[in-house]
Amino acid sequence: MRKMSDGVEAALHSALVLTAVPDGKVLTGRSLATLHGVSESYLLKHLRALAAAGVIEAVPGPRGGYRLAREPGQITLLDIVEAIDGTEPAFHCREIRRRGPGKARDPCVYTSDCFIKTRMLAAEQAWRAALRAQSLADLVADGERLIDPGNKAAVAGFIADEQR
Amino acid sequence: MRKMSDGVEAALHSALVLTAVPDGKVLTGRSLATLHGVSESYLLKHLRALAAAGVIEAVPGPRGGYRLAREPGQITLLDIVEAIDGTEPAFHCREIRRRGPGKARDPCVYTSDCFIKTRMLAAEQAWRAALRAQSLADLVADGERLIDPGNKAAVAGFIADEQR
Ligand code: FES
Ligand code: FES
Repeated sequence: MRKMSDGVEAALHSALVLTAVPDGKVLTGRSLATLHGVSESYLLKHLRALAAAGVIEAVPGPRGGYRLAREPGQITLLDIVEAIDGTEPAFHCREIRRRGPGKARDPCVYTSDCFIKTRMLAAEQAWRAALRAQSLADLVADGERLIDPGNKAAVAGFIADEQR
Repeated sequence: MRKMSDGVEAALHSALVLTAVPDGKVLTGRSLATLHGVSESYLLKHLRALAAAGVIEAVPGPRGGYRLAREPGQITLLDIVEAIDGTEPAFHCREIRRRGPGKARDPCVYTSDCFIKTRMLAAEQAWRAALRAQSLADLVADGERLIDPGNKAAVAGFIADEQR
C-alpha cells in the first residue's frame, strides 16, 4: 500500500492525549508538540487539519488551545486518518478500458464503473470499515491496559501542568 | 488513502487479457500496450514487476512474450497489487511514543508495538484480506457477464491476431 502521511501517527497520538484533558480545559499546539517531541509547526499543520475536519476544536484567544470536538467514542480512527490523508480512493482508474482496439464505439457501454475498479474500491471499503469500527475510546482502553504506569504518570503530570 | 501507482490498473487489465491467451501461446508487451492504449515502455515496466513477482512469465526469444504463471483462480488481486505497489504497510510508525517528556526511561517498556500501530496495521490487513479473497478468475467471470459483446469480440480478435 502507498505510504500515508507521517502526520497520521502524530494526529492519532495527539487526539489520544486530548482525551485526558478535563472538560473546559485545552492544550496548546506547543504543549502537544513538546509532549510528542515533534516541531510545533509540523504538528500545527495536522492539528489544523483535525480541526477543519471537526475532530478537534480550536479555542481562540490568550487562554486558547485545542480540545476534542466530541466524545472519544464518537471519533473513529477513520475520522482522524481522513482528516490528515483525505478521502480520495487509493485505486486510480484512468478508464483504460476506453482506449485501444478493444474500446466500444457506443459510449453507452460505459455507463457503469469498470468491474475491476468496483472490486478495487470494495477492498478499500473493507479498510475504511475496519478504521470506522475503532474509536478513540478503544485507544483509551488500550492505553489503560498497555501504557507503562511510569509513562502514564509522566504524561498525566505534563497535562496537569500544561492545560489551560 | 494515499494513491497507489497508476500501474495497478494497467497490470490488472493486462493480467485479465492474459487469461484469454490459449495454452502455449504468449502476447508481447507491445501487443498488450496497443490493446490498452498505453505506451510500451510504461507497460513493460509493470509487466516486468508482475514477472518478478511470479504472477506472469516472460518467455524469451523471437517468439517470446508474456503468459500467466499460474491458473487465474490462483492469482489474487493482492498478488497483482503487491507486485506493482510493494508490500510495505501504508501506516508509518516513527515511534513518537519514545519522544518527549512522556517517554519511558526503561527501554524494555517498548518491547511490543504501540497499540495505535497495531490497530492501524490490523485495518490494513482487512484491505489485504479483501484483495486476497478475489482472484483473476473472478474478473474473468465479471467480464463474461459485463463486457459488451462487441468489445469482447474486438478483444478476442485482437488476441487471435497478435498471439504467438
Ligand atoms: S478501466 Fe479503470 S479499472 Fe478498468
Ligand atoms: S508510536 Fe508509532 S503509532 Fe504509536
